[in-house]
Amino acid sequence: MGDLSRDELDGIYAFAVELGKQAGKMLTDAAQLRISGGSGSQKEQEHVQKENAVDLVTETDENVEAFIKGQIMEKYPSHKFVGEESYSKGTSRDYLINDDMTWCVDPLDGTVNYIHLFPMFCVSIAFIHKQKPLIGVIYAPFINQFFSSCAGRGAFLNETQQLPLVRTPVPALPSNAPSGCIFSCEWGKDRRDAPDSNLHRKIESFVNMAAEVGGRGGRGGMVHGVRSLGSATLDLAYVAMGAFDIWWEGGCWEWDVAAGIAILQEAGGLITTANPPEDPATAPIEEVRLGSRLYLAIRPAGPSSNETGRQGQERTVREVWRRVRNLDYSRPGA
Amino acid sequence: MGDLSRDELDGIYAFAVELGKQAGKMLTDAAQLRISGGSGSQKEQEHVQKENAVDLVTETDENVEAFIKGQIMEKYPSHKFVGEESYSKGTSRDYLINDDMTWCVDPLDGTVNYIHLFPMFCVSIAFIHKQKPLIGVIYAPFINQFFSSCAGRGAFLNETQQLPLVRTPVPALPSNAPSGCIFSCEWGKDRRDAPDSNLHRKIESFVNMAAEVGGRGGRGGMVHGVRSLGSATLDLAYVAMGAFDIWWEGGCWEWDVAAGIAILQEAGGLITTANPPEDPATAPIEEVRLGSRLYLAIRPAGPSSNETGRQGQERTVREVWRRVRNLDYSRPGA
Repeated sequence: MGDLSRDELDGIYAFAVELGKQAGKMLTDAAQLRISGGSGSQKEQEHVQKENAVDLVTETDENVEAFIKGQIMEKYPSHKFVGEESYSKGTSRDYLINDDMTWCVDPLDGTVNYIHLFPMFCVSIAFIHKQKPLIGVIYAPFINQFFSSCAGRGAFLNETQQLPLVRTPVPALPSNAPSGCIFSCEWGKDRRDAPDSNLHRKIESFVNMAAEVGGRGGRGGMVHGVRSLGSATLDLAYVAMGAFDIWWEGGCWEWDVAAGIAILQEAGGLITTANPPEDPATAPIEEVRLGSRLYLAIRPAGPSSNETGRQGQERTVREVWRRVRNLDYSRPGA
Repeated sequence: MGDLSRDELDGIYAFAVELGKQAGKMLTDAAQLRISGGSGSQKEQEHVQKENAVDLVTETDENVEAFIKGQIMEKYPSHKFVGEESYSKGTSRDYLINDDMTWCVDPLDGTVNYIHLFPMFCVSIAFIHKQKPLIGVIYAPFINQFFSSCAGRGAFLNETQQLPLVRTPVPALPSNAPSGCIFSCEWGKDRRDAPDSNLHRKIESFVNMAAEVGGRGGRGGMVHGVRSLGSATLDLAYVAMGAFDIWWEGGCWEWDVAAGIAILQEAGGLITTANPPEDPATAPIEEVRLGSRLYLAIRPAGPSSNETGRQGQERTVREVWRRVRNLDYSRPGA
């Protein structure tokens, strides 16, 4: 961790946890206003009615980011801040995270869910140093799921239950993965119907993962279940928990995944790129690049009788790569 | 309600609510054993490791059903009981619900989620009289979401928040629905790769709902989001809540949907058949047949300036029918 002491990091973690709780409360307070029809309800109602707008950003989103940024700048004025809202309003589309101590924040992930009051929305706060997410806080206040981690301290659900949840022992990945696995994926906002669009590449990949073994010209993965929550952040949290075995996605941004990556890695999970390399069977499995917009996450795994947990994870990565298409998302500077 | 008084029904409702709470606690207690590695953990672990078995039934499932059935038979010995587990073990595949007072119970919906400890699992308890689900109780204990309803008394989240959640006013359905809607659907267990299999009919329908407007030969629905939770029961609960606008599914059974239908209808939602009639634009929209295995649910909706809530729901049903394929599920006696 270089110029960052254990004590300093622990202090930042405690601060991030409190910040997450307060931001989560802002999200539920604003939702409650809409439910009970308070003074803010008409404006919120307009958002709900704003049809056909898949990329919808609420006022709450901006308020919560301003709050989080203000708290951080007051406590740690030397740290950098990268947030979804400020990025969207900026002129650069470059990847802005360097070796500095940086907070990477999504004040509201699962915006569409939040608009519709489906509980799978959350605040996501990551602290990054030397390009590595060291602290992650994810809070889904509507369902009281608070995920947090700090490098060297473990990852937790609601501050008490260590992740992954099943740990005596941590289950190995199935020997015939992806069969037996819960596969988490998202349809996303890119719905162009062109023949080789990301939508169709995704669908082809999803169907390969889902179809019976032997189907799809040998690509059928017969996963145990296919899940789509509408929140990349919570997808990652559930992979860290061990509830989802595999998450595969393209198109999201560093603030969607930074906290989730911190929590997943601290829990023992693996994360690499969504796009299969030229030789998926033998290519080295590299650590994810945070700004790559292409992610494949595998849950924490224990050993089986004939392989280590890491070997099981790598085997699962290769089995996924064999079944998915390359997605077309890029990023300047990443 | 014929030979059932208001007082009697209220008494049955209070009993059902308590029953749901106890059954939900049994589910979390059994999950906790697995997490902390108690005496039951090895057996449970075997279930987790039982790869490739999409239709997995746990011991807990059977225990909870036996408990619920026992409590009901003790309190109301004259009532009939239809449960997932007892049905599966019986010889008849017929639809068994008639005009008698009948409890229709799924002790554990979202079994795959439960195996993996993904929180979207629940107990589902319905009380049916003269073929109509009058009481519904759905409890997802891991995320503290308790849904309940009784005919004439309203539908509620956690016994205090009336459904749908946004009610001042209840929002109209978008004028260009399914655009602007959250579409909930499930991949299910039927993953045969034959050219016109249910898997491919579902996928074609999902893609029509998701693709950009103008895409898919004019069928593109550009829904706001596509969600798959792995629990038909919770899908319906979230439609009743107003969080999901549309749920479309084939293949589930009456115990998967009876409580959800009770709650949805009491909240003001509409439920009919998944399979489009010959003329989707003009065919009458009939009330769902409980045992039909084919369901299309639309959330509670308020009026807009030019149509009633019901008109908006029927318009949305027709827009969905225009985009989906017939599914091939049938049922003797339904």
